[in-house]
Amino acid sequence: MRMRPLTRADRAQLAMILEVSAYPKPGNVDRCHDYETTRLEHFLASAILARPALEAAERSEGGPGALIHQAVECTSGHRGGNTHFGAFILLIPLLMGGDIPGATRVVGSTTVDDAVEFYRAFGKTEVRVIQGHELDVHDPSSIMEIRSRGMTLYDLMLFSAPRDMVAREWINGFEMTRRGADLIHAAGSGQQAVVEAFLGL
Amino acid sequence: MRMRPLTRADRAQLAMILEVSAYPKPGNVDRCHDYETTRLEHFLASAILARPALEAAERSEGGPGALIHQAVECTSGHRGGNTHFGAFILLIPLLMGGDIPGATRVVGSTTVDDAVEFYRAFGKTEVRVIQGHELDVHDPSSIMEIRSRGMTLYDLMLFSAPRDMVAREWINGFEMTRRGADLIHAAGSGQQAVVEAFLGL
Repeated sequence: MRMRPLTRADRAQLAMILEVSAYPKPGNVDRCHDYETTRLEHFLASAILARPALEAAERSEGGPGALIHQAVECTSGHRGGNTHFGAFILLIPLLMGGDIPGATRVVGSTTVDDAVEFYRAFGKTEVRVIQGHELDVHDPSSIMEIRSRGMTLYDLMLFSAPRDMVAREWINGFEMTRRGADLIHAAGSGQQAVVEAFLGL
Repeated sequence: MRMRPLTRADRAQLAMILEVSAYPKPGNVDRCHDYETTRLEHFLASAILARPALEAAERSEGGPGALIHQAVECTSGHRGGNTHFGAFILLIPLLMGGDIPGATRVVGSTTVDDAVEFYRAFGKTEVRVIQGHELDVHDPSSIMEIRSRGMTLYDLMLFSAPRDMVAREWINGFEMTRRGADLIHAAGSGQQAVVEAFLGL
């Protein structure tokens, strides 16, 4: 039977469920390993619940900051803490831009409003933040500081890139994302392809 | 953070992923067991891919037969054979009707066209059919036979009910579906609730 055409949102959701199910991924949640409070089911539910934000990103309805914020709000209905915040930071520009060159254009055109929305989103996650950070996401004055410095979301990622491999993707043209995709293709796209890519990165 | 309102399609997808992940479910695919050619990933992908048909059912766009057919077509993109055909036969009326009394009204109002669409859907699945069955889904004359007898989809289910526990649900007011939901609630909706319901049915 002919397959229905997949949307970008479908592909993003398939990537999220295949990634988390792939086993073994030492140190990560996978089909056979949970964290104490974040389980496989939380990741799977998060992939389902993210749908409206992924669809909005595919239609470029709003900037990357607001769309990441929407994705965080969509997926806050489970009690497993942070599941896909890092994934959304990468997936939203990819959904908007359609591919890595497109995503690179999207992140290069972010605004101060994107930075503010991103900070609001970050404050709603349970991602651990290094104490005493100059721009603390739980400190409302950080948003004033971002505005007064005129920092875009790209500037924020540039600022975080030395310590954060997700932020680094925004700066270096999604280098590890590209390498991961190449490793999956090289592994033949079978059941073990995600694991081989994970171990090879 | 406040959870976004869940649609019926969201709830159906969450049910599908939580059901298949729940472990242990002796004899079924679960988090730790695959069939030889149908794996956990096929069920998870099927839950994602079904989305357009589930949304259409929530809006009652079309009859139950056409919507089951759409769900089968949506989910035909993986190579794991049949994953959710039985689930769709139950979920589509529930999505259309909103609850069990509503679903019971939906199945009671099916038409001959619903029966024909259902047969077309059935022929596209890899569900095993008993050989020599009077209305073989792979025999085009079955559809003529359905039309000449004026059989509705409800009539077809009535015909199959003695041998098929999914068809039986249509006839008896979703008795086992109700019992499953009650068992899940009684088990407290935690991680083991699906397993307890499965074993208790």
